[in-house]
Amino acid sequence: METAIRQLAEQAREASLKTATLDTATKNSALRRLAELLELQTGAILEANAKDLKAGEENGLTQALLDRLRFSPERIQAMAEGVRQVISLPDPVGETIEESTRPNGLRLVKRRVPIGVIGIIYESRPNVTVDCAVLCLKSGNACILRGGKEAFHSNTILSKIIQQALRESGISPAAVQLIPTTERKALNILLKMDDFIHCIIPRGGEGLIRFVAENSRIPVIKHYKGICNVYVDIDADLEIAGNIVENAKCQRPGVCNAAENLFLHKDIVQPFLPKIARRLTEKGVELRIDEAAANHLIGTEIPYKQAQEADFHEEFLDLILSIKTVGSLEDAISSINCYGSGHSDAIITNNETTAETFLASVDTSTAYWNASTRFTDGFEFGLGAEIGISTDRLHARGPMGLRELCTYKFIVYGTGQVK
Amino acid sequence: METAIRQLAEQAREASLKTATLDTATKNSALRRLAELLELQTGAILEANAKDLKAGEENGLTQALLDRLRFSPERIQAMAEGVRQVISLPDPVGETIEESTRPNGLRLVKRRVPIGVIGIIYESRPNVTVDCAVLCLKSGNACILRGGKEAFHSNTILSKIIQQALRESGISPAAVQLIPTTERKALNILLKMDDFIHCIIPRGGEGLIRFVAENSRIPVIKHYKGICNVYVDIDADLEIAGNIVENAKCQRPGVCNAAENLFLHKDIVQPFLPKIARRLTEKGVELRIDEAAANHLIGTEIPYKQAQEADFHEEFLDLILSIKTVGSLEDAISSINCYGSGHSDAIITNNETTAETFLASVDTSTAYWNASTRFTDGFEFGLGAEIGISTDRLHARGPMGLRELCTYKFIVYGTGQVK
Repeated sequence: METAIRQLAEQAREASLKTATLDTATKNSALRRLAELLELQTGAILEANAKDLKAGEENGLTQALLDRLRFSPERIQAMAEGVRQVISLPDPVGETIEESTRPNGLRLVKRRVPIGVIGIIYESRPNVTVDCAVLCLKSGNACILRGGKEAFHSNTILSKIIQQALRESGISPAAVQLIPTTERKALNILLKMDDFIHCIIPRGGEGLIRFVAENSRIPVIKHYKGICNVYVDIDADLEIAGNIVENAKCQRPGVCNAAENLFLHKDIVQPFLPKIARRLTEKGVELRIDEAAANHLIGTEIPYKQAQEADFHEEFLDLILSIKTVGSLEDAISSINCYGSGHSDAIITNNETTAETFLASVDTSTAYWNASTRFTDGFEFGLGAEIGISTDRLHARGPMGLRELCTYKFIVYGTGQVK
Repeated sequence: METAIRQLAEQAREASLKTATLDTATKNSALRRLAELLELQTGAILEANAKDLKAGEENGLTQALLDRLRFSPERIQAMAEGVRQVISLPDPVGETIEESTRPNGLRLVKRRVPIGVIGIIYESRPNVTVDCAVLCLKSGNACILRGGKEAFHSNTILSKIIQQALRESGISPAAVQLIPTTERKALNILLKMDDFIHCIIPRGGEGLIRFVAENSRIPVIKHYKGICNVYVDIDADLEIAGNIVENAKCQRPGVCNAAENLFLHKDIVQPFLPKIARRLTEKGVELRIDEAAANHLIGTEIPYKQAQEADFHEEFLDLILSIKTVGSLEDAISSINCYGSGHSDAIITNNETTAETFLASVDTSTAYWNASTRFTDGFEFGLGAEIGISTDRLHARGPMGLRELCTYKFIVYGTGQVK
């Protein structure tokens, strides 16, 4: 198997040297053709998907997993529309990032170029196959896709359709390749191919991402989880605070930018906590509150549990919120730096000095002042698309779009200079 | 030992949260004090260094290694001057990289911030201790230093002097820590501490760097080697070509940006090869030439060896040059993408179309048009200093200065926005 995967990776590397210099029109015409083909081959996609669904049912997948796996004509249509949206995004390749002329006359241009070969490791959603392939192609990269075994038939037909679109547009089909086996061993082999693959982006649960990070010799861009925090300061506008806390927790609790922890300045617990606790409870939120704060709910009928230390380290992805009292701004900052996952963290205050200290000191990809953590997202940030969110520090932090799928090179224009 | 190293790493992480928000004046005053202390303690540094030199001689280190290890009053003075130069460099922390206002009124600022904790793994030059610590500090990072065992006494006193300067300037001495043992096991433990250390920069020979890259769970920025290439095109100005080839090979053959391979367009071999071969031979260069080119030296007395395939993959770091004929520009590009290490590659031509194709297609950190590869260097590129050169693609490519020791965070200014 090692030989087969090595060959596939070599072909991807070879293809990447060609995709790196494709003009925008060629890339866009492949995308346009892909959108058409997805629509034209809806029947065949549904047929392959039905095989995956049948196997999934036989293997006892949960309804939630089966739903992630399931295609419908509408979902295929939405996928095709997603491809068309990428056509309209600016091509990042070739952009000048910086430019300077040195005293010896050398002109230096730092130019954006594709990374090369990107490996995408993902789980059960087959639409990731198309979403990621399209972003890699638009940014001039080749990609190797390794999807979940539950979606194997769906991924296989989608990758064939992508390759057909590439071929019909004069692009090497080796620029988008699916690993043709779901054996775990194949993943281990792939993650050591640092001669040919330049970056791994894992998408899925924490277990998968940890496995990839611990076994990869190739640089990985990732986030394990989103433990996002909101701090309500002594100088907060309590109406704004209430709206943001509710939104950050309730609007879509299953996503990584939803809030999991709420920190309250000790002098704002009364009057804020009883109000927000009632409001959240009405929305079905389970509250896990530390003792100091919970004292302020005595005599109310608001239900809550006593928070344990472990609660503040947990990504619930559910209608559960941990609440803790802090004695000061510094206490809030160090709590967030301790419990948070460096994803998205907000302060609610009207005090500018307090806010600026918080924004500078919280060690996170995105720090908010008086706004909901739910905005951490490639589309909301104006990137047009998102390949993932990074809580790492190297290369990309926060939402990643087309530019984050690029590196740069220095181009140096001389007239015969020697050192 | 694991406990001790974990504690050290935790302390570095803790310190990094403080150094991240230090103002420039505080950082500079620590640097100023460090330069003074290095001068004041010259005697003590030489004494510690003498212990390393004595041990090195007893262990049979080569003269070259002993020379790398050796301090003199002049070298200590130069090190202090290097520290003072970093004072004058702009502080990268807090710079605004990009700024935008979204339709919903959210103002997004992408701001440069320190990476966090940097691990520097190096070999026998003790001055790296000071050079790297200083760049990490100026960029707001904490660092963990792991030097070579040959320089242990020198590194130990230097790290103590650095910590004294930090302490006297009100900065936690945990911001710069030397691993207090030279056991290999300590390195293995360190490289798994991805909870506390955010980036590893190895500096040294290829063996060390491969060991680090293969054993690290922490992202590594590195270059294994510099196989730099010069291509002399059919449209080259032969005087410029001669000067650049000589400079790229001979000016300092032992460094990573020196040229190792020369590719000649088949129609330029005559008249270029006999001239450049004579010129290089006079400079003491050993030539390893492929058969097609060597035919043009028949009848001359110019000495050369027949090039083997392996020669073109080798970083000689010496007065040796491999020379190969190529049939076309495309052939030159694919040869460089095959043999090169993605470090620095030059084309010599007067044809702009040819040059632009080369510059776009060569997959390298720095592509030159009519200039010597020897310019790939942080100082030459105007970075003011250099912590290393990356042939990787993520985060940094090419020379790395203070900015490359930073990541960014998004700061989002709202007025109560919810999603």
